[in-house]
Amino acid sequence: MVLLEFSITPLGEGESVSHYVAEAVKLIDASGLDYQTHAMGTIVEGSLDQVLGLLRQCIEAMAVHSNRVSVVAKLDYRHGYEGRLKSKVASVEQKLGRPIKK
Amino acid sequence: MVLLEFSITPLGEGESVSHYVAEAVKLIDASGLDYQTHAMGTIVEGSLDQVLGLLRQCIEAMAVHSNRVSVVAKLDYRHGYEGRLKSKVASVEQKLGRPIKK
Amino acid sequence: MVLLEFSITPLGEGESVSHYVAEAVKLIDASGLDYQTHAMGTIVEGSLDQVLGLLRQCIEAMAVHSNRVSVVAKLDYRHGYEGRLKSKVASVEQKLGRPIKK
Amino acid sequence: MVLLEFSITPLGEGESVSHYVAEAVKLIDASGLDYQTHAMGTIVEGSLDQVLGLLRQCIEAMAVHSNRVSVVAKLDYRHGYEGRLKSKVASVEQKLGRPIKK
Repeated sequence: MVLLEFSITPLGEGESVSHYVAEAVKLIDASGLDYQTHAMGTIVEGSLDQVLGLLRQCIEAMAVHSNRVSVVAKLDYRHGYEGRLKSKVASVEQKLGRPIKK
Repeated sequence: MVLLEFSITPLGEGESVSHYVAEAVKLIDASGLDYQTHAMGTIVEGSLDQVLGLLRQCIEAMAVHSNRVSVVAKLDYRHGYEGRLKSKVASVEQKLGRPIKK
Repeated sequence: MVLLEFSITPLGEGESVSHYVAEAVKLIDASGLDYQTHAMGTIVEGSLDQVLGLLRQCIEAMAVHSNRVSVVAKLDYRHGYEGRLKSKVASVEQKLGRPIKK
Repeated sequence: MVLLEFSITPLGEGESVSHYVAEAVKLIDASGLDYQTHAMGTIVEGSLDQVLGLLRQCIEAMAVHSNRVSVVAKLDYRHGYEGRLKSKVASVEQKLGRPIKK
Protein backbone atom coordinates (compact mmCIF):
# COMPACT_ATOMS: atom_id res chain seq x y z
CA MET A 1 0.00 0.00 0.00
CA VAL A 2 1.01 3.53 -0.69
CA LEU A 3 0.69 6.81 1.14
CA LEU A 4 0.52 9.76 -1.25
CA GLU A 5 0.62 13.28 0.10
CA PHE A 6 -0.05 16.10 -2.32
CA SER A 7 -1.09 19.70 -2.69
CA ILE A 8 -2.27 21.42 -5.85
CA THR A 9 -2.03 25.16 -6.31
CA PRO A 10 -3.47 27.15 -9.20
CA LEU A 11 -1.16 30.02 -10.22
CA GLY A 12 -2.60 33.30 -11.39
CA GLU A 13 -5.83 32.89 -9.44
CA GLY A 14 -4.98 35.18 -6.56
CA GLU A 15 -3.42 34.44 -3.19
CA SER A 16 -6.51 32.80 -1.65
CA VAL A 17 -6.98 29.38 -3.16
CA SER A 18 -9.11 27.43 -0.63
CA HIS A 19 -12.02 27.50 -3.07
CA TYR A 20 -9.91 25.46 -5.51
CA VAL A 21 -8.56 23.19 -2.81
CA ALA A 22 -12.14 22.42 -1.77
CA GLU A 23 -12.86 21.07 -5.25
CA ALA A 24 -9.94 18.70 -5.07
CA VAL A 25 -10.92 17.57 -1.58
CA LYS A 26 -14.41 16.81 -2.89
CA LEU A 27 -12.88 14.41 -5.42
CA ILE A 28 -10.65 12.84 -2.78
CA ASP A 29 -13.57 12.35 -0.45
CA ALA A 30 -15.63 10.81 -3.25
CA SER A 31 -12.83 8.36 -4.14
CA GLY A 32 -13.59 6.19 -1.12
CA LEU A 33 -9.89 6.04 -0.21
CA ASP A 34 -8.89 6.78 3.35
CA TYR A 35 -7.43 10.26 3.61
CA GLN A 36 -6.42 13.07 5.93
CA THR A 37 -6.41 16.75 4.97
CA HIS A 38 -4.03 19.01 6.87
CA ALA A 39 -2.88 22.60 6.53
CA MET A 40 -0.30 21.81 3.84
CA GLY A 41 -2.02 19.15 1.73
CA THR A 42 -3.86 15.86 1.80
CA ILE A 43 -2.59 12.33 2.42
CA VAL A 44 -4.40 9.41 0.78
CA GLU A 45 -3.81 5.70 1.22
CA GLY A 46 -4.41 3.13 -1.50
CA SER A 47 -2.74 1.07 -4.19
CA LEU A 48 -0.22 2.80 -6.46
CA ASP A 49 -2.85 2.76 -9.21
CA GLN A 50 -5.53 4.24 -7.01
CA VAL A 51 -3.49 7.11 -5.61
CA LEU A 52 -1.89 8.09 -8.93
CA GLY A 53 -5.30 7.89 -10.63
CA LEU A 54 -6.78 10.19 -8.01
CA LEU A 55 -3.86 12.59 -8.32
CA ARG A 56 -4.42 12.79 -12.04
CA GLN A 57 -8.13 13.39 -11.60
CA CYS A 58 -7.48 16.25 -9.16
CA ILE A 59 -4.90 17.87 -11.45
CA GLU A 60 -7.27 17.69 -14.42
CA ALA A 61 -10.12 19.18 -12.38
CA MET A 62 -7.90 22.07 -11.33
CA ALA A 63 -6.61 22.63 -14.87
CA VAL A 64 -10.15 23.26 -16.07
CA HIS A 65 -10.27 26.47 -14.07
CA SER A 66 -6.66 27.58 -14.12
CA ASN A 67 -4.17 27.95 -16.92
CA ARG A 68 -1.26 26.98 -14.71
CA VAL A 69 -1.28 24.43 -11.92
CA SER A 70 1.54 23.58 -9.54
CA VAL A 71 1.67 20.24 -7.73
CA VAL A 72 3.89 18.91 -4.96
CA ALA A 73 3.67 15.24 -4.08
CA LYS A 74 5.42 12.83 -1.76
CA LEU A 75 4.87 9.12 -1.85
CA ASP A 76 5.77 6.39 0.61
CA TYR A 77 5.50 2.89 -0.86
CA ARG A 78 5.97 0.05 1.56
CA HIS A 79 5.32 -3.59 0.86
CA GLY A 80 3.08 -5.43 3.29
CA TYR A 81 1.93 -2.49 5.38
CA GLU A 82 -1.58 -1.06 5.61
CA GLY A 83 -3.39 1.52 7.71
CA ARG A 84 -0.29 3.68 7.89
CA LEU A 85 -2.24 6.96 7.91
CA LYS A 86 -2.63 6.22 11.61
CA SER A 87 0.09 3.71 12.42
CA LYS A 88 3.10 5.83 11.39
CA VAL A 89 2.27 8.52 13.94
CA ALA A 90 1.36 5.89 16.54
CA SER A 91 4.79 4.33 16.04
CA VAL A 92 6.49 7.66 16.75
CA GLU A 93 4.37 8.09 19.89
CA GLN A 94 5.34 4.62 21.03
CA LYS A 95 9.05 5.44 20.62
CA LEU A 96 8.55 8.66 22.61
CA GLY A 97 6.39 6.94 25.22
CA ARG A 98 3.80 9.70 25.07
CA PRO A 99 1.22 11.33 22.78
CA ILE A 100 2.17 14.13 20.38
CA LYS A 101 0.08 16.77 18.61
CA LYS A 102 -1.61 15.23 15.61
CA MET B 1 3.70 33.91 10.11
CA VAL B 2 4.97 30.86 8.37
CA LEU B 3 3.83 27.28 8.11
CA LEU B 4 6.75 24.91 7.54
CA GLU B 5 6.10 21.28 6.77
CA PHE B 6 9.07 18.95 6.74
CA SER B 7 10.22 15.39 6.99
CA ILE B 8 13.73 14.15 7.64
CA THR B 9 14.87 10.70 6.60
CA PRO B 10 18.21 9.09 7.44
CA LEU B 11 19.54 6.99 4.55
CA GLY B 12 21.44 3.82 5.20
CA GLU B 13 19.76 3.18 8.57
CA GLY B 14 17.30 0.56 7.39
CA GLU B 15 13.73 0.89 6.20
CA SER B 16 12.18 1.56 9.64
CA VAL B 17 13.05 5.06 10.73
CA SER B 18 10.40 6.00 13.32
CA HIS B 19 13.04 5.87 16.04
CA TYR B 20 14.85 8.73 14.29
CA VAL B 21 11.66 10.63 13.56
CA ALA B 22 10.81 10.46 17.27
CA GLU B 23 14.03 12.32 18.08
CA ALA B 24 13.13 15.14 15.73
CA VAL B 25 9.59 15.31 17.10
CA LYS B 26 11.05 15.62 20.59
CA LEU B 27 12.92 18.74 19.47
CA ILE B 28 9.85 20.13 17.74
CA ASP B 29 7.73 19.58 20.83
CA ALA B 30 10.37 21.24 23.02
CA SER B 31 10.49 24.30 20.74
CA GLY B 32 7.21 25.60 22.06
CA LEU B 33 5.96 26.27 18.53
CA ASP B 34 2.53 25.03 17.58
CA TYR B 35 2.83 21.91 15.44
CA GLN B 36 1.00 18.93 13.98
CA THR B 37 2.65 15.60 13.17
CA HIS B 38 1.00 13.49 10.49
CA ALA B 39 1.93 10.35 8.59
CA MET B 40 4.19 12.15 6.10
CA GLY B 41 5.87 14.82 8.22
CA THR B 42 5.34 17.59 10.72
CA ILE B 43 3.94 21.10 10.23
CA VAL B 44 5.16 23.88 12.52
CA GLU B 45 3.94 27.46 12.73
CA GLY B 46 6.15 30.39 13.71
CA SER B 47 8.25 33.24 12.36
CA LEU B 48 10.58 32.53 9.44
CA ASP B 49 13.49 32.64 11.90
CA GLN B 50 11.87 30.24 14.31
CA VAL B 51 10.86 27.60 11.79
CA LEU B 52 14.16 27.64 9.87
CA GLY B 53 16.08 27.54 13.17
CA LEU B 54 14.09 24.51 14.26
CA LEU B 55 14.59 22.82 10.89
CA ARG B 56 18.33 23.28 11.21
CA GLN B 57 18.34 21.91 14.73
CA CYS B 58 16.45 18.79 13.63
CA ILE B 59 18.76 18.20 10.66
CA GLU B 60 21.84 18.51 12.86
CA ALA B 61 20.39 16.12 15.44
CA MET B 62 19.73 13.56 12.72
CA ALA B 63 23.17 14.00 11.18
CA VAL B 64 24.79 12.95 14.45
CA HIS B 65 23.44 9.44 13.99
CA SER B 66 23.39 9.09 10.24
CA ASN B 67 25.97 9.79 7.59
CA ARG B 68 23.36 10.82 5.06
CA VAL B 69 20.16 12.69 5.74
CA SER B 70 17.42 13.55 3.27
CA VAL B 71 15.00 16.42 3.94
CA VAL B 72 11.83 17.54 2.17
CA ALA B 73 10.29 20.84 3.20
CA LYS B 74 7.40 23.01 2.10
CA LEU B 75 6.83 26.50 3.39
CA ASP B 76 3.81 28.78 3.20
CA TYR B 77 4.62 32.38 4.11
CA ARG B 78 1.64 34.71 4.36
CA HIS B 79 1.69 38.22 5.71
CA GLY B 80 -0.85 39.07 8.38
CA TYR B 81 -2.20 35.59 9.00
CA GLU B 82 -1.85 33.49 12.13
CA GLY B 83 -3.26 30.24 13.50
CA ARG B 84 -3.27 28.72 10.04
CA LEU B 85 -2.49 25.19 11.26
CA LYS B 86 -6.22 25.05 11.99
CA SER B 87 -7.75 27.83 9.87
CA LYS B 88 -6.60 26.59 6.46
CA VAL B 89 -8.49 23.32 6.82
CA ALA B 90 -11.47 25.14 8.38
CA SER B 91 -11.59 27.41 5.34
CA VAL B 92 -11.80 24.39 3.00
CA GLU B 93 -14.58 22.92 5.14
CA GLN B 94 -16.46 26.20 4.96
CA LYS B 95 -16.24 26.20 1.16
CA LEU B 96 -17.51 22.63 1.08
CA GLY B 97 -20.20 23.30 3.65
CA ARG B 98 -19.29 20.19 5.62
CA PRO B 99 -16.51 18.60 7.70
CA ILE B 100 -13.71 16.59 6.07
CA LYS B 101 -11.28 14.02 7.48
CA LYS B 102 -8.48 15.80 9.30
CA MET C 1 2.32 20.11 -21.54
CA VAL C 2 3.65 19.17 -18.18
CA LEU C 3 7.03 19.31 -16.51
CA LEU C 4 7.42 16.60 -13.88
CA GLU C 5 10.43 16.58 -11.62
CA PHE C 6 10.94 13.57 -9.40
CA SER C 7 13.40 11.58 -7.38
CA ILE C 8 12.97 8.05 -6.09
CA THR C 9 14.91 6.74 -3.11
CA PRO C 10 14.93 3.17 -1.84
CA LEU C 11 15.05 3.02 1.96
CA GLY C 12 16.97 0.31 3.72
CA GLU C 13 19.41 -0.21 0.85
CA GLY C 14 22.30 1.73 2.31
CA GLU C 15 23.33 5.33 1.87
CA SER C 16 24.65 5.01 -1.70
CA VAL C 17 21.75 4.66 -4.09
CA SER C 18 23.10 5.73 -7.49
CA HIS C 19 22.87 2.13 -8.69
CA TYR C 20 19.08 2.31 -8.18
CA VAL C 21 18.81 5.79 -9.64
CA ALA C 22 20.57 4.51 -12.77
CA GLU C 23 17.80 1.96 -13.29
CA ALA C 24 15.14 4.63 -13.18
CA VAL C 25 17.12 6.87 -15.54
CA LYS C 26 17.36 3.96 -17.97
CA LEU C 27 13.54 3.80 -18.06
CA ILE C 28 13.27 7.58 -18.44
CA ASP C 29 15.75 7.58 -21.28
CA ALA C 30 13.89 4.73 -22.99
CA SER C 31 10.55 6.58 -22.73
CA GLY C 32 11.48 8.93 -25.54
CA LEU C 33 10.33 11.94 -23.52
CA ASP C 34 12.65 14.91 -23.26
CA TYR C 35 14.36 14.97 -19.88
CA GLN C 36 17.15 16.43 -17.81
CA THR C 37 18.83 14.65 -14.91
CA HIS C 38 20.43 16.83 -12.26
CA ALA C 39 21.93 16.24 -8.82
CA MET C 40 18.57 16.13 -7.03
CA GLY C 41 16.31 14.36 -9.52
CA THR C 42 15.11 14.22 -13.09
CA ILE C 43 12.75 16.53 -14.99
CA VAL C 44 10.66 15.08 -17.82
CA GLU C 45 8.37 16.88 -20.23
CA GLY C 46 5.27 15.34 -21.76
CA SER C 47 1.51 15.05 -21.47
CA LEU C 48 0.03 14.47 -18.01
CA ASP C 49 -0.61 10.86 -19.03
CA GLN C 50 2.91 10.33 -20.24
CA VAL C 51 4.72 11.75 -17.24
CA LEU C 52 2.49 10.06 -14.63
CA GLY C 53 2.77 6.77 -16.54
CA LEU C 54 6.55 7.04 -16.52
CA LEU C 55 6.57 7.93 -12.83
CA ARG C 56 4.53 4.83 -12.08
CA GLN C 57 6.83 2.66 -14.14
CA CYS C 58 9.90 3.95 -12.29
CA ILE C 59 8.32 3.43 -8.87
CA GLU C 60 7.33 -0.13 -9.75
CA ALA C 61 10.83 -0.89 -11.03
CA MET C 62 12.33 0.39 -7.78
CA ALA C 63 9.83 -1.52 -5.65
CA VAL C 64 11.04 -4.80 -7.16
CA HIS C 65 14.37 -4.37 -5.43
CA SER C 66 13.43 -2.51 -2.30
CA ASN C 67 10.76 -3.07 0.29
CA ARG C 68 10.30 0.63 0.88
CA VAL C 69 10.50 3.40 -1.69
CA SER C 70 10.27 7.13 -1.10
CA VAL C 71 9.30 9.51 -3.90
CA VAL C 72 9.27 13.29 -4.15
CA ALA C 73 7.62 14.89 -7.17
CA LYS C 74 6.84 18.37 -8.37
CA LEU C 75 4.70 19.08 -11.40
CA ASP C 76 4.18 22.23 -13.41
CA TYR C 77 1.17 22.04 -15.70
CA ARG C 78 0.74 24.95 -18.09
CA HIS C 79 -1.72 25.12 -20.96
CA GLY C 80 -0.32 26.04 -24.33
CA TYR C 81 3.38 25.93 -23.52
CA GLU C 82 5.97 23.47 -24.79
CA GLY C 83 9.73 23.09 -24.65
CA ARG C 84 9.84 24.49 -21.14
CA LEU C 85 12.75 22.32 -20.04
CA LYS C 86 14.85 24.94 -21.78
CA SER C 87 12.60 28.00 -22.04
CA LYS C 88 11.94 28.49 -18.33
CA VAL C 89 15.62 29.00 -17.58
CA ALA C 90 16.04 31.11 -20.73
CA SER C 91 13.23 33.36 -19.52
CA VAL C 92 15.03 33.95 -16.21
CA GLU C 93 18.25 34.74 -18.07
CA GLN C 94 16.39 37.21 -20.24
CA LYS C 95 15.01 38.98 -17.16
CA LEU C 96 18.51 39.14 -15.67
CA GLY C 97 20.08 40.19 -18.95
CA ARG C 98 22.86 37.63 -18.61
CA PRO C 99 23.54 33.89 -18.52
CA ILE C 100 23.33 31.90 -15.26
CA LYS C 101 24.77 28.54 -14.25
CA LYS C 102 22.61 25.79 -15.66
CA MET D 1 28.41 19.52 2.65
CA VAL D 2 24.82 19.98 1.72
CA LEU D 3 22.91 20.15 -1.54
CA LEU D 4 19.78 22.28 -1.22
CA GLU D 5 17.30 22.42 -4.07
CA PHE D 6 14.52 24.94 -3.82
CA SER D 7 11.93 26.90 -5.71
CA ILE D 8 10.04 29.96 -4.51
CA THR D 9 6.70 30.97 -5.99
CA PRO D 10 4.78 34.14 -5.20
CA LEU D 11 1.02 33.53 -5.10
CA GLY D 12 -1.38 36.15 -6.34
CA GLU D 13 1.11 37.68 -8.77
CA GLY D 14 -0.21 36.09 -11.93
CA GLU D 15 0.83 32.90 -13.68
CA SER D 16 4.12 34.20 -15.08
CA VAL D 17 6.63 34.49 -12.29
CA SER D 18 10.05 34.40 -13.99
CA HIS D 19 10.55 38.07 -13.08
CA TYR D 20 10.43 37.06 -9.41
CA VAL D 21 12.55 33.98 -9.92
CA ALA D 22 15.20 36.18 -11.53
CA GLU D 23 15.49 38.21 -8.33
CA ALA D 24 16.11 35.11 -6.28
CA VAL D 25 18.67 33.81 -8.79
CA LYS D 26 20.48 37.15 -8.53
CA LEU D 27 20.88 36.59 -4.79
CA ILE D 28 21.99 33.00 -5.32
CA ASP D 29 24.55 34.05 -7.89
CA ALA D 30 25.84 36.79 -5.56
CA SER D 31 26.23 34.31 -2.68
CA GLY D 32 29.35 32.81 -4.20
CA LEU D 33 28.05 29.29 -3.61
CA ASP D 34 28.17 26.83 -6.46
CA TYR D 35 24.72 26.41 -7.98
CA GLN D 36 22.73 25.11 -10.90
CA THR D 37 19.40 26.56 -12.03
CA HIS D 38 17.09 24.22 -13.93
CA ALA D 39 13.48 24.39 -15.09
CA MET D 40 12.02 23.46 -11.70
CA GLY D 41 14.30 25.24 -9.24
CA THR D 42 17.87 25.87 -8.23
CA ILE D 43 20.38 23.60 -6.49
CA VAL D 44 23.06 25.17 -4.28
CA GLU D 45 25.96 23.50 -2.53
CA GLY D 46 27.42 24.70 0.75
CA SER D 47 27.44 24.20 4.49
CA LEU D 48 24.08 23.75 6.23
CA ASP D 49 24.44 27.30 7.55
CA GLN D 50 25.21 28.75 4.16
CA VAL D 51 22.39 27.11 2.25
CA LEU D 52 19.71 27.76 4.90
CA GLY D 53 20.91 31.36 5.22
CA LEU D 54 20.61 31.83 1.47
CA LEU D 55 17.18 30.21 1.44
CA ARG D 56 16.02 32.64 4.11
CA GLN D 57 17.43 35.60 2.20
CA CYS D 58 15.59 34.56 -0.97
CA ILE D 59 12.29 34.05 0.86
CA GLU D 60 12.56 37.45 2.50
CA ALA D 61 13.36 39.13 -0.81
CA MET D 62 10.30 37.53 -2.39
CA ALA D 63 8.06 38.44 0.56
CA VAL D 64 8.81 42.12 -0.02
CA HIS D 65 6.91 42.01 -3.30
CA SER D 66 4.28 39.39 -2.60
CA ASN D 67 1.88 38.88 0.26
CA ARG D 68 2.05 35.12 -0.03
CA VAL D 69 5.08 33.04 -0.92
CA SER D 70 5.22 29.29 -1.44
CA VAL D 71 8.52 27.39 -1.11
CA VAL D 72 9.48 23.80 -1.87
CA ALA D 73 12.88 22.58 -0.75
CA LYS D 74 14.81 19.33 -0.77
CA LEU D 75 18.08 18.86 1.04
CA ASP D 76 20.70 16.16 0.79
CA TYR D 77 23.18 16.23 3.66
CA ARG D 78 26.10 13.85 3.37
CA HIS D 79 29.15 13.80 5.59
CA GLY D 80 32.50 13.90 3.88
CA TYR D 81 31.35 14.54 0.32
CA GLU D 82 31.89 17.66 -1.77
CA GLY D 83 31.34 18.72 -5.36
CA ARG D 84 28.19 16.67 -5.58
CA LEU D 85 26.43 19.10 -7.93
CA LYS D 86 28.45 17.33 -10.61
CA SER D 87 29.50 14.04 -9.05
CA LYS D 88 26.02 12.66 -8.32
CA VAL D 89 25.06 12.73 -11.99
CA ALA D 90 28.49 11.44 -12.99
CA SER D 91 28.00 8.50 -10.66
CA VAL D 92 24.72 7.60 -12.36
CA GLU D 93 26.40 7.83 -15.76
CA GLN D 94 29.16 5.55 -14.57
CA LYS D 95 26.61 2.93 -13.42
CA LEU D 96 24.90 3.16 -16.81
CA GLY D 97 28.17 3.13 -18.72
CA ARG D 98 27.09 6.06 -20.89
CA PRO D 99 26.20 9.75 -20.78
CA ILE D 100 22.66 10.93 -20.01
CA LYS D 101 20.87 14.24 -20.68
CA LYS D 102 21.90 16.77 -18.08
